[in-house]
Amino acid sequence: DRKDEENEPECENILSGFQTSRVLRDSAREKIIFIHGKIADEEAVVILEKTPIREDSLPELFSSSTLRLEMRNDVYSTYRLQVPSHLNEIKTTVVCPATQKHVKKYQQQESFLVEETAQDYESITLPYVQQQSFSLQWVYNILEKKAEADRILYEDPDLELGFVLLPDFKWDQKQVDDLYLIAIAHQRHIGSLRDLTSKHLPLLQNMLQKGQEAILQRYHLPHSKLRVFLHYQPSYYHLHVHFTNLGFEAPGCSVERAHLLSNVIQNLQSDPKFYQTRTLSFPLRADDGLLGRFKEAGRL
Amino acid sequence: DRKDEENEPECENILSGFQTSRVLRDSAREKIIFIHGKIADEEAVVILEKTPIREDSLPELFSSSTLRLEMRNDVYSTYRLQVPSHLNEIKTTVVCPATQKHVKKYQQQESFLVEETAQDYESITLPYVQQQSFSLQWVYNILEKKAEADRILYEDPDLELGFVLLPDFKWDQKQVDDLYLIAIAHQRHIGSLRDLTSKHLPLLQNMLQKGQEAILQRYHLPHSKLRVFLHYQPSYYHLHVHFTNLGFEAPGCSVERAHLLSNVIQNLQSDPKFYQTRTLSFPLRADDGLLGRFKEAGRL
Repeated sequence: DRKDEENEPECENILSGFQTSRVLRDSAREKIIFIHGKIADEEAVVILEKTPIREDSLPELFSSSTLRLEMRNDVYSTYRLQVPSHLNEIKTTVVCPATQKHVKKYQQQESFLVEETAQDYESITLPYVQQQSFSLQWVYNILEKKAEADRILYEDPDLELGFVLLPDFKWDQKQVDDLYLIAIAHQRHIGSLRDLTSKHLPLLQNMLQKGQEAILQRYHLPHSKLRVFLHYQPSYYHLHVHFTNLGFEAPGCSVERAHLLSNVIQNLQSDPKFYQTRTLSFPLRADDGLLGRFKEAGRL
Repeated sequence: DRKDEENEPECENILSGFQTSRVLRDSAREKIIFIHGKIADEEAVVILEKTPIREDSLPELFSSSTLRLEMRNDVYSTYRLQVPSHLNEIKTTVVCPATQKHVKKYQQQESFLVEETAQDYESITLPYVQQQSFSLQWVYNILEKKAEADRILYEDPDLELGFVLLPDFKWDQKQVDDLYLIAIAHQRHIGSLRDLTSKHLPLLQNMLQKGQEAILQRYHLPHSKLRVFLHYQPSYYHLHVHFTNLGFEAPGCSVERAHLLSNVIQNLQSDPKFYQTRTLSFPLRADDGLLGRFKEAGRL
């Protein structure tokens, strides 16, 4: 993917002046840490995540590293391996300037399962989402090629049925093991699952089929190796579909938040108003304003 | 912990001569890889795992690393951070000489997503499950109090609507953070989701409500903190329901295998034959006999 890494300019290390205020979240299992702090007087969130170990780097890793013994017992021994830094990078994401919303988003919070009836959606969720008026500018930047244009893997430019397919921020594209792509519909004003009716079936089927084909072409992953799903609630209210490697336990693929696209299509085929009438369960974090609304309404 | 790291002897790098034969398992999420190979003519398994990011190392990490820009869009930017090797070690475990048992233990099986139509169920899955005649004796032992009687947390003894609630083997009961309970129906001959019709609604509603109540009483977890689901395919063909702490990303709670009980109930309420007519997706491991049947039938 990146043939002339050596020629890439090393950029100014804006992190050397980073002042940590606190750790928002930290997963020892996933080797990731979310930190809130300041870069030159601006609020920032910095996310550091160790990269997966790549099979193709193993020979160089083994030959060019230093091994330090920790423990030996019978056939078992443990070591600390010190590795040349270019073989062991840390994926770094900076959000700057960061708002209170960003900080909240990355903060670890208890979750509660909400059971949203169709009426709850109309009287609680929809008014809340509309009041928030989350900015979708970054989504429109992508769709209009004003940003991330070089990251687009596939596009169907049709304004009704088309979409743009690109890697999720969480994926470093170094190995397909944790493949994570997002398909963003060109069609606007489909906020979430709740807006989908049978009239969107051609769009959804197109995103599923062409997304699968593009991934087969580019990554040689057949559709039996893919988990293709939507989130409800989504993290932004513009229709997008998640494509992940089935073998990768991606964050957010749990049954309480993820909806397989193949099931969404079947549900709409058997009932055009499925998502306007059903009770939908989803988790909300303790600090989510929407949870507060459900509590005020006595629905939790 | 290790004050005089500098004085520790660097040991002979036995890995420099490691010959990889294959990757047994690889988790991009956990940044761990299990490799089978040879060290000086002896069979060996080598496990490499990136270390968690330590809060106390952050100041040195930020000041002494090199940052390379990958992408910039609006307030978001991503980088690759190249870090001094002593701040970014890889935990290394060597099993040598390794037996066949070690190799099998660490081996991961690939999974494939199967899309089972109603007809596939009749012609492929059901005949396979019947042929296997998996023993359910251990389940009947629990229901008849011939085994694990002291582990039962709650029982509704009704033979039509009742069930037994007990901890899953995966849960050590030391903390509610990873609470994992199983409710096993007294009623027999409900093999899986495919057998459920609207006549089972009273049973399912009873298991959901009384299971939630028992967990609230015993563990003070309200139902908004619970993920209550069935598996399809199940690991044994006798109706059982999983109750897990919502905050615990339990294995097997991914959308491709788990079905929220509240959704199962709604599906049966709106269509009594829902599970006899729908296409259901589920993952199968490469070594699963059922996957072989789907392949023979040209369905994968």
